[in-house]
Amino acid sequence: MHHDPSCPIGIFDSGVGGLTVARAVMELLPDENIIYFGDTARVPYGVKSPETVARYAAQITRFLLERHVKLLIVACNTMAAVALPAITSLSPVPVLEVIDAGARSALAVTRSKRIGIIATPSTVASKAYERALSRLGGPDVHTVAKACPLFVPLVEEGWLDHPATRLVAVEYLAPLAAENLDTLILGCTHYPLLAPLLADVVGPGLRLQDSATAVARQAAAILNEQGLRNPGRQPRYDFHVTDMPHRFLEIGQRFLGQAMVNVHLETI
Amino acid sequence: MHHDPSCPIGIFDSGVGGLTVARAVMELLPDENIIYFGDTARVPYGVKSPETVARYAAQITRFLLERHVKLLIVACNTMAAVALPAITSLSPVPVLEVIDAGARSALAVTRSKRIGIIATPSTVASKAYERALSRLGGPDVHTVAKACPLFVPLVEEGWLDHPATRLVAVEYLAPLAAENLDTLILGCTHYPLLAPLLADVVGPGLRLQDSATAVARQAAAILNEQGLRNPGRQPRYDFHVTDMPHRFLEIGQRFLGQAMVNVHLETI
Repeated sequence: MHHDPSCPIGIFDSGVGGLTVARAVMELLPDENIIYFGDTARVPYGVKSPETVARYAAQITRFLLERHVKLLIVACNTMAAVALPAITSLSPVPVLEVIDAGARSALAVTRSKRIGIIATPSTVASKAYERALSRLGGPDVHTVAKACPLFVPLVEEGWLDHPATRLVAVEYLAPLAAENLDTLILGCTHYPLLAPLLADVVGPGLRLQDSATAVARQAAAILNEQGLRNPGRQPRYDFHVTDMPHRFLEIGQRFLGQAMVNVHLETI
Repeated sequence: MHHDPSCPIGIFDSGVGGLTVARAVMELLPDENIIYFGDTARVPYGVKSPETVARYAAQITRFLLERHVKLLIVACNTMAAVALPAITSLSPVPVLEVIDAGARSALAVTRSKRIGIIATPSTVASKAYERALSRLGGPDVHTVAKACPLFVPLVEEGWLDHPATRLVAVEYLAPLAAENLDTLILGCTHYPLLAPLLADVVGPGLRLQDSATAVARQAAAILNEQGLRNPGRQPRYDFHVTDMPHRFLEIGQRFLGQAMVNVHLETI
């Protein structure tokens, strides 16, 4: 059943942020069916302990596997950082995730091998990006990471180009300026929406890399390899959430780049 | 069992914010045993739907009732706003909550009966403060409410006097300036930590009111009336949380005004 090409791709996140990944997958693989799961009742994960995040990640993985996904994409940096073993140990299908994809994408563009990472406190504390960069890029990769806990609420407030957001960005990014970096990984799926402001704050010498397109490319490659591209047309998109919070559809649309249809409320 | 004066007072919140209420109760009622419950795994509630908040509130209420509390204090504006029926219907002991207390406290100081409310999006959308003020203060009370979703993450980041916080406050509070208010209710238990900055932003003509002291006074009155003041000394404080997130003890101490001891991790 998992090897039926018409089965959907499962994409999940703690909330709406992973919709930037869903959007990249829809653009690159327009014929694929997608089931998205956003744990909107328990978001944000970025400030929770690894044990709690792993427990929630396992619940979501089971939910998607029961719906016969052919591929799982962990579109949440926090879950990728601290809960990947809990996910892969349950999954008979391939698991892709944003940290590996983001690290590969940064290594493909860096010249100096001096790479910065901005992310939630949990992702930074996990050192998952540093481990991935060192594993994939060798011991001479130099990394600096900075937690930016206010970026997620600022993005969800829609203050993508607000003077307060700029002040916050200047303060968060100041410690990175002295590090002579040439690449900055946006290590949270919310951050691509701040990319124009962040590019302005860090200046032209620093290249911003997000993981959404990178993980979508990995998904295309693995489906091609395994002969699992969906032959059908008119794909179906389903969005499962654990809560329908205030302004959810408005915020979701901002991330997805299109209106959300087939939205289902789940208790897991 | 519930009528034993040595039983604890149960105080609960979605996270650490209610510790400002616990602190006020400890100061006013220094001999009382206290059980605090903070749903740190699922915080914040302020952006969740009323149905989800009510479900979580009922779980916490059951948890505290099983531990034989003699009084329940809902130290979370969001739960008080949208989940009070779910709590009172389960409770054989008196239930106090911050919205009623905050409204009474504002009405006691206002002269013009023109009262502003700042709170989370859910609390504002519920119109619970407006209902309480109108019920307690009559039809000539004029109210204006403004949701301030960035204040909670700014407080938890510890940016209590940061230029970015000031910019956010100026933007959020600007619509209130034209309303000729004389009283502003801080309708979220996180906001008292921003009181100095907010007082500076709104100027001396506007009096800030928080609910922590008000609800502590109500608790003292009800225990006195019912002969339920604890005769013992050396009270015990227990803190039950659903997650021990990053910097939890540090942030908790900032709210409580003292180090947290007897901290227990719960799964509910």
